[in-house]
Amino acid sequence: MNYKMMGRFIAQILFVEGVFMIPALIISLCCGETMAVRGFVITLALIAAVVLVLWRICRGAPSAFYAKEGLVCVGISWIVLSLLGCLPFYISREIPRYIDAFFEIVSGFTTTGSSILTDVEALSNGILYWRSFSHWLGGMGVLVFLLAFTGGKGQGFTMHLLRAESPGPNVGKLVPKMRKTAAILYIIYVVMTIINIIFLLIGKMPLLEAVCTAFGTAGTGGLGIKNDSMASYSPYLQNVTTVFMALFGINFSCYYLLLLGQIRSVFKDEELRLYLGLIFGSIVLIVLNLRDFYPTLGETVRHAAFQVSSIITTTGYGTTDFDLWPTFSKTILVLLMMVGACAGSTGGGFKCARLLLVMKSLRRNIRQVIHPRKVQVVRNNGVVVDEKVLDNANAYLAAYVVILFVSFLIISLDNFSVGTNFTAVLACFNNIGPGLEAVGPTCNFSAFSDLSKLVLSFDMLAGRLEIFPILALLSRGTWSGKSAY
Amino acid sequence: MNYKMMGRFIAQILFVEGVFMIPALIISLCCGETMAVRGFVITLALIAAVVLVLWRICRGAPSAFYAKEGLVCVGISWIVLSLLGCLPFYISREIPRYIDAFFEIVSGFTTTGSSILTDVEALSNGILYWRSFSHWLGGMGVLVFLLAFTGGKGQGFTMHLLRAESPGPNVGKLVPKMRKTAAILYIIYVVMTIINIIFLLIGKMPLLEAVCTAFGTAGTGGLGIKNDSMASYSPYLQNVTTVFMALFGINFSCYYLLLLGQIRSVFKDEELRLYLGLIFGSIVLIVLNLRDFYPTLGETVRHAAFQVSSIITTTGYGTTDFDLWPTFSKTILVLLMMVGACAGSTGGGFKCARLLLVMKSLRRNIRQVIHPRKVQVVRNNGVVVDEKVLDNANAYLAAYVVILFVSFLIISLDNFSVGTNFTAVLACFNNIGPGLEAVGPTCNFSAFSDLSKLVLSFDMLAGRLEIFPILALLSRGTWSGKSAY
Repeated sequence: MNYKMMGRFIAQILFVEGVFMIPALIISLCCGETMAVRGFVITLALIAAVVLVLWRICRGAPSAFYAKEGLVCVGISWIVLSLLGCLPFYISREIPRYIDAFFEIVSGFTTTGSSILTDVEALSNGILYWRSFSHWLGGMGVLVFLLAFTGGKGQGFTMHLLRAESPGPNVGKLVPKMRKTAAILYIIYVVMTIINIIFLLIGKMPLLEAVCTAFGTAGTGGLGIKNDSMASYSPYLQNVTTVFMALFGINFSCYYLLLLGQIRSVFKDEELRLYLGLIFGSIVLIVLNLRDFYPTLGETVRHAAFQVSSIITTTGYGTTDFDLWPTFSKTILVLLMMVGACAGSTGGGFKCARLLLVMKSLRRNIRQVIHPRKVQVVRNNGVVVDEKVLDNANAYLAAYVVILFVSFLIISLDNFSVGTNFTAVLACFNNIGPGLEAVGPTCNFSAFSDLSKLVLSFDMLAGRLEIFPILALLSRGTWSGKSAY
Repeated sequence: MNYKMMGRFIAQILFVEGVFMIPALIISLCCGETMAVRGFVITLALIAAVVLVLWRICRGAPSAFYAKEGLVCVGISWIVLSLLGCLPFYISREIPRYIDAFFEIVSGFTTTGSSILTDVEALSNGILYWRSFSHWLGGMGVLVFLLAFTGGKGQGFTMHLLRAESPGPNVGKLVPKMRKTAAILYIIYVVMTIINIIFLLIGKMPLLEAVCTAFGTAGTGGLGIKNDSMASYSPYLQNVTTVFMALFGINFSCYYLLLLGQIRSVFKDEELRLYLGLIFGSIVLIVLNLRDFYPTLGETVRHAAFQVSSIITTTGYGTTDFDLWPTFSKTILVLLMMVGACAGSTGGGFKCARLLLVMKSLRRNIRQVIHPRKVQVVRNNGVVVDEKVLDNANAYLAAYVVILFVSFLIISLDNFSVGTNFTAVLACFNNIGPGLEAVGPTCNFSAFSDLSKLVLSFDMLAGRLEIFPILALLSRGTWSGKSAY
């Protein structure tokens, strides 16, 4: 293992985290929030110290860097980011227990949006800003940011890292240079976030609220700044958020293609069609199922569209308590929780692209059982899919199911209902936020034991990093001898 | 498609069903149950008519027979068996609605053991016998019976059928001749059932009850003959059933190897180890979790062992209402529901062998992500596993998950709780019987709508036939043109 290179990398990442913490500190200073200021200052000092020490120790790193180091690097840096990133919550005493603060920031960075707070509105402005900003940073990925704007060392290095951190079964390069790809993605991300903020400001949302809400939407995170999430906002603001959540769930390369004027190839994209079809179909089914639930059809459509968009993109904002909906509608939401957004977006979950691959590989397999001697291939957007990619999608499904059920078992020790436990794991693992019953949209995760909070934090990280970087940390093969492969 | 051959085959199968219905008729005659006698006589007459007509029409069938015809044959014959097999229930008016009678016999043949009856003890003896016997016949498979004792036509024919009907990822031949293999399996099955009956008779169970209980145990079915399943029987009878359920969940080829004296290779079998390890581990965990639930440790162990054995083998008998257990214990049972018994046993579920393959293929994939350039193989019992078998296990997982969730969605229209719906589907699809909450061990499936009963019947069939024969019936590829592949 190339420990020195990894050390330098983690130092860089912590540096970025520190830089991004400064605006939160400034907000706290302006609002005169003494405790929050103390939290940020101490944390920043600590980060600075760690960065300096790491940078010193890890001088003269060899430049060879392999896939497994990329995986481990990503896994470790997300954990370190969270361990230090939660300190402002803890030091300012706004979240008095460290494990709760850790859960909250993991929920932020992984864009999950599950909270252990019972009263969000009691938080200071600086802390609120940092909490929401963690979504924005985690959404596109802090490593991707690093690659885009500071530059990595050589092609292999950046490819390995980007592959490990970026969501989806295969990372497409938009342009030949990886670094430029990362920069393009981030620029699209920034511009769309700004447009979202403008739309919210037009709806008369106060500036800080608009910024925080847009951060949560852009990162498909969902940590709200109101106790009732988005329920008390005007229908206009809710509809704006519905649309932007759906937009941030689309593969960002589609936007790049749109910029290049290749509108046709965007609308031919099979994943995009599946994603939009799922959104549309779910809204229609839920509206039919909720016929007499709300006074007007308009309100029904608004709530249905908001919740579907929020759940499939794994954002987790809410405008209504969907735990009260009839079971059919709730079941649709539970299924959407598992599907998730498009690959290459900021959304989590299993990803539409992977669902497409698994379904196609299944169809191929049925055909093969019927016609054993025919050679069958799987195509995606007309191109034959490499068997390795298929294998990987199937292995991902297996890993997904295994982690899901093991977590489900461990947290059941807290003796909540089966529905609560299952949807709590789903909500964390798919980076959604709220589940059903005791973790429904009007509730929070504070009642779970410390063990369960750790398991759920693990699930959030595993879900955000798409399992393998986190599994690699736990795998014996990673730590054994040779780094030549 | 070779329709004539299929027609003759279905005629043979119905003939076997008719023959096996005669003992039930005799029991009804002896007990003077007029309505039941009427039911059996009319059904037998109908079966005879169908058999004669089919046999006539389908003379001179060509002998070519391919995989897809095997699949379709198996799928159709199980449906026809059920459509006719439920007639005695319906005609005797003991189950007044046809859809309920159909659900009940599908639950019998597929060895699920879910019931729509609120009062089992009101049934007549002949009907009770037929209901329990359906487990025994379905457990090892009626087609396997046909192969074993009437002989099929040629090797390809029998292989295709056996593969389609037998549980597990790959059918091992015990002896070079398929027909002899089937015969050996059936003889082991009959002998073990008789031993089970003897043990029950020693515990002073009345003869008919002992026979019916043994049928349910042997087929890992679980339709009880008492309203409280096994709760009112003596601890001795419960323990005997615990042991025999576990024994019938083991791959039958292990018994053949034992008969040949190859004890070592049996205990080296990885699937058997996993199966026994799961049983033992689950009992220990549940006993720890249930510490203060029952008055004595002995009682706790007895109930824990019975329930674990019943659920992992997908039998579904109960001695206690495990829906009242703490969530951790319930969650273990839910997870065992999904795992199921060994391949090549009469039990259902995903199967331990397949779990092993999926886990190994996952481990291989993690290694491959860490060391992308190394060639990795998967071994089972020391032998390298064919990639096709792995693909198949992964595709099976995908099909499993898809059917699970689609069924979950459809039955949620009945507006029961999420926990009820999810475990109802699990219980039917894995051929277990009881679920949790509204379909818990003290409840039944009568409250579901007709649509849900149909969906659950489909799940039971798909689960018993391991998905592909039923999916083949629904696939366009099956019915299109050429039968050359």
